[in-house]
Amino acid sequence: MTTPSAPTLAQGPAHEVQRCPPLTRTALDTSQAETAAAIFKALGDPVRLRIFSMIASAPDGELCVCDVVDVGVSQPTISHHLRKLREAGLLTSRKEATWVHYRVAPGVLAATAALLAPPG
Amino acid sequence: MTTPSAPTLAQGPAHEVQRCPPLTRTALDTSQAETAAAIFKALGDPVRLRIFSMIASAPDGELCVCDVVDVGVSQPTISHHLRKLREAGLLTSRKEATWVHYRVAPGVLAATAALLAPPG
Repeated sequence: MTTPSAPTLAQGPAHEVQRCPPLTRTALDTSQAETAAAIFKALGDPVRLRIFSMIASAPDGELCVCDVVDVGVSQPTISHHLRKLREAGLLTSRKEATWVHYRVAPGVLAATAALLAPPG
Repeated sequence: MTTPSAPTLAQGPAHEVQRCPPLTRTALDTSQAETAAAIFKALGDPVRLRIFSMIASAPDGELCVCDVVDVGVSQPTISHHLRKLREAGLLTSRKEATWVHYRVAPGVLAATAALLAPPG
């Protein structure tokens, strides 16, 4: 029996985005804009966003890559999208036997939504 | 004296995004993913996001294109980014004399943040 690996920690832009102020509060500086734009860019592809929503809405919050099906692209393309999401820090992953399991990185949805908070 | 034009209405993906469920509730279908991804893609460029945040954080919620300065790109590039944001339905605009004034389309920030709402 293979011991499941520990989940990888959130990293990259998603780790930094919680330091960005809401867009309605102040104009972002260059560094903040690069961080936040990297998150939005990662979500800015229809197939990638579908895959992300499949993982985000999985019943126990985690989805095996083997269950990412019917998205209309090949397995290598799915792997490419998952890598982009992980590099942006939106997903964490852990390996169990031969399969990689993905979940949304803790806090990243709330931190990104906070960027879009209305003024007040 | 030129009569200011009425603000244009929000349109395009931003108008549709309020019909998309939160990403944590259910996997998006193809059409929903295209709508939501178009919003995220529009925000997924650092310079475009800086410009958007300048408008979103303007004291009275509106910014003249003449005040979009110091973002490190040429005026034609600024115009290109503003057009992309308007096409995505993120901005509305009105013309007053020779200048175009921009503001965030009503409801679009809340609708996009709702996509990222945590499960519950």
